[in-house]
Amino acid sequence: MLKTRLLLAATCLAFAASALAHSPEEDAVEYRQGLMTVIGWNFGPLGAMVKGKKAFDATAFALHADRIANLSDQVVEGFPKGSDKGAHTDAKAALWANFDDFSEKAKAFNTEAKALAEVAKTKDEAKSKAQFKKVAEACKACHEKYKND
Amino acid sequence: MLKTRLLLAATCLAFAASALAHSPEEDAVEYRQGLMTVIGWNFGPLGAMVKGKKAFDATAFALHADRIANLSDQVVEGFPKGSDKGAHTDAKAALWANFDDFSEKAKAFNTEAKALAEVAKTKDEAKSKAQFKKVAEACKACHEKYKND
Repeated sequence: MLKTRLLLAATCLAFAASALAHSPEEDAVEYRQGLMTVIGWNFGPLGAMVKGKKAFDATAFALHADRIANLSDQVVEGFPKGSDKGAHTDAKAALWANFDDFSEKAKAFNTEAKALAEVAKTKDEAKSKAQFKKVAEACKACHEKYKND
Repeated sequence: MLKTRLLLAATCLAFAASALAHSPEEDAVEYRQGLMTVIGWNFGPLGAMVKGKKAFDATAFALHADRIANLSDQVVEGFPKGSDKGAHTDAKAALWANFDDFSEKAKAFNTEAKALAEVAKTKDEAKSKAQFKKVAEACKACHEKYKND
């Protein structure tokens, strides 16, 4: 039984390895793009509620805000040294030339996203929507300067 | 100032929209693949510690385990109706034919991942590693049946 379990675990580790099958730098590009997609997936319903395209649902708002806050912790590690290469990165050269400024902007996003998760817990619609806009501005501040469309 | 902020927010919502620029079904495929990549990114260091390729670091172990637990909440929503189409999905036809079984397996992964996050908080190395293997088995149980490599 133990042997079977170890075998299963080994096979599954191979799965995980094949999911990240490239160089560490290419893995980082794939990781950070995946992370942005997952953030965007959760950002979508919040944006729709803020723009009035969807009715405000305090529980759903808080759920997605909490996820974004957690995901926002994971941004900077997706930009290790050497991951500026490769055809499919969307990071501008300016990001690597201004890494401290990039890190500060990522930190600002993290801070605003955590604040959004806290505000959303109170279920206050106006405050939640106002704080969402601060998160959106923090996205934009970084993307505009450091991300190709 | 308010006007500027609203403008900024609108622009940023457009960013989010362009990140998810396809049909809802294609967005779902991109989302679930991104999610798997982010899970894999966090799974990697745990696997390395369990296999002894990296020294056990209880704090790092708990951090990645906690992230995986949170991410594991988000799996099933990546498989909405209609997202079985498209050239680049890795989901087997069997997944859609056995959706209840798939959902149960995803739920089992969720349960084992939550348990891992709890065990990892205790910083008990042996128990953490043992529970990691259960998570890995839960990955495998689902991937083997429902995911093309």
